[in-house]
Amino acid sequence: MIVSQSNARPTRELVLLGASGSIGTTTRQFLKGQPAVRLQAASVHRSLDSLPELIALGIRRLALTDPEVFERNQESILSRYPSLQIYGGEKGMLQMLADARSAGADTVLTAIVGAAGLTATIRSIELDYKIALANKETLVTAGPVIRDLLLSIPEKERPAMLPVDSEHNSLFQLLELVRPEFIRRLILTASGGPFRTTPLAELQQVNRKEVLSHPTWSMGPKITVDSAGMINKGLEVIEAHFLFGRSYEEIEVVIHPQSQIHALLELRDGSYLMAGATPSMLFPIAHALMYPNVLETAHHVARPPVEWPALCFEKVDPLRYPGFDICLNAGHRGGSAPAALNAANEELVAAFLKGEIGFCQIPELLDETLKRVSWFAKGSLADYIEMDRRARSEVQSLLKQEVIA
Amino acid sequence: MIVSQSNARPTRELVLLGASGSIGTTTRQFLKGQPAVRLQAASVHRSLDSLPELIALGIRRLALTDPEVFERNQESILSRYPSLQIYGGEKGMLQMLADARSAGADTVLTAIVGAAGLTATIRSIELDYKIALANKETLVTAGPVIRDLLLSIPEKERPAMLPVDSEHNSLFQLLELVRPEFIRRLILTASGGPFRTTPLAELQQVNRKEVLSHPTWSMGPKITVDSAGMINKGLEVIEAHFLFGRSYEEIEVVIHPQSQIHALLELRDGSYLMAGATPSMLFPIAHALMYPNVLETAHHVARPPVEWPALCFEKVDPLRYPGFDICLNAGHRGGSAPAALNAANEELVAAFLKGEIGFCQIPELLDETLKRVSWFAKGSLADYIEMDRRARSEVQSLLKQEVIA
Repeated sequence: MIVSQSNARPTRELVLLGASGSIGTTTRQFLKGQPAVRLQAASVHRSLDSLPELIALGIRRLALTDPEVFERNQESILSRYPSLQIYGGEKGMLQMLADARSAGADTVLTAIVGAAGLTATIRSIELDYKIALANKETLVTAGPVIRDLLLSIPEKERPAMLPVDSEHNSLFQLLELVRPEFIRRLILTASGGPFRTTPLAELQQVNRKEVLSHPTWSMGPKITVDSAGMINKGLEVIEAHFLFGRSYEEIEVVIHPQSQIHALLELRDGSYLMAGATPSMLFPIAHALMYPNVLETAHHVARPPVEWPALCFEKVDPLRYPGFDICLNAGHRGGSAPAALNAANEELVAAFLKGEIGFCQIPELLDETLKRVSWFAKGSLADYIEMDRRARSEVQSLLKQEVIA
Repeated sequence: MIVSQSNARPTRELVLLGASGSIGTTTRQFLKGQPAVRLQAASVHRSLDSLPELIALGIRRLALTDPEVFERNQESILSRYPSLQIYGGEKGMLQMLADARSAGADTVLTAIVGAAGLTATIRSIELDYKIALANKETLVTAGPVIRDLLLSIPEKERPAMLPVDSEHNSLFQLLELVRPEFIRRLILTASGGPFRTTPLAELQQVNRKEVLSHPTWSMGPKITVDSAGMINKGLEVIEAHFLFGRSYEEIEVVIHPQSQIHALLELRDGSYLMAGATPSMLFPIAHALMYPNVLETAHHVARPPVEWPALCFEKVDPLRYPGFDICLNAGHRGGSAPAALNAANEELVAAFLKGEIGFCQIPELLDETLKRVSWFAKGSLADYIEMDRRARSEVQSLLKQEVIA
């Protein structure tokens, strides 16, 4: 249980996009005990399971981004909650963002899985929301566009973009503290997933259930599959590159199986600053929502150092995690490569979850897709979205060949 | 080897007090490759071994604090180094501090072992030196006096006091970064010394050689004995109390046998910021001397996380480390208690090193001494120095009884 703050009054009005997923669920858990943040509006894609809880948290606006679910449920929801304003489809969600902003909302948490969060993030920047970004695909797909958009706004008026990924949130906290001239490198930790010590020969045989058994983090299925092959960490390196404006040479990854330390800064003198906590999304979600204010009470999952497991750090083995290097290469290549990478990976993970391909085929087909799609160095938002579409269709034709073969 | 900085010109003029000890030796090692800090003056107590090196580093002033050694060697040193100005005794050292200041020195590193550093530190504050404090006994003996002296100086003109203890230096770096309202607790780590896993029953039998075999830190004999029984960590808690103006409730100690993480800040949300490096005094010495400037190159002893041993954290067992609790109690009691504690401990460690008492008698006789000396809540510098003297004489009479018994 999270103990509520004394004398706390709402200091934030929140829009939660993706309220029914893993991040959304943890966010609702945090909001229950936190009078400093009031939930004004929320979106879900298909699942209505969280609706009673969202109502209890006080939402006045709800978007159902799946048009079919919207059509089917709009009336019955309105009959139960007549004061609720309901929006349908992706366009409806964008309209809700604008309406909530007019009604005083100041913060948006984008916890939509995959590339769908891109337009929501851009709209949020335009509407001058503070953004808690739990959608790394936004920056991987269209990092240059987001960066240019943010840089086009005078620094004083530029909306804050707070990362909700625990590694990036830790880095954000560290980077905010340390004078840039002290810093040599940014280091993200990776758990290494469930197959860190599996004999390489057995990796071909791992099944869906094994892939979804993450040793330290409890997350949604897509990111859990990404984590097992460290493609998630590769995407995170690209995210960090755009988020913190650092070159790929300045960003490093180490495997840290206990997920207790989320990020490190290597200082110029060879010493390290580290940030860590129990592996729970409560920490980065709460930090991003409260920032720059302070959460006064410890999360119930917090544990003191004497209760931590022994902490170790290991190099990333490229033979075990071929997808990680594919991501880094796409990042280094830049331009349209990260967008193609992200889209192809989403399709391949979906195919894996449906049982259409094996775990080790994800990096193989990812590599093949990236070879097949064309490349451009710089494009408009429409270009990146078109690249996303093309990479997906390339994957689908590859998958058909696989089935035939 | 420490790679020298490009384009570096001296930005500091240093006085090194205690140039022949362990900290002094590491400082000389650092200075050799560091044109940004010029050594202007140095003191040694008895040993002249470091003299050629000090001359090579460019000192123009030398104090020999042992009057006898001064008398015996003054002439021969002058005949070899006629341009050197030589000072004798403790008074001579204080005169050297003043002369060096007039000649442009701006920083003093007090690496004198034991309570003798007190007057040097006070004189350095009065002379408006930046102080790199490698003498925790100063703050333990007369913390309230030093604190009041510093607070009597307007904040803008107050000299910086940089701790050279690695734990305190790490805390200094962390505390400088983090907004105070985020911080719940300061945590110092302790290696636990060589007897962390020795069966308790065998502790009575440990010998001098075993006590002096520290598992992670290479230090002088006095502090190594202190570390074996965690009396050093108890003194460090008192040092941290005065240095950072924090209550004892806000300062915690955890055992961390690998000495890789030196200090942690527990934040209000239950997450942690940590600072660490290879256990080498090069890091805190260089940081304290360079501050607020940046050392641009990594120390040769620096190691990346993948080369660190597995890191663990354990509670302090009061049965194994009775001296630690004695220190905390003296800290809580305040007033003259820490001064008595520190002086009695110095005498007892000296007696142990001479083979007069066993290792486990140190905390026993420390406790007994603290019970015997009178106590005052607040005193002048003279009162604390008198308490130091009284505690030493109390120990000596206890030791005589021990010999008779």
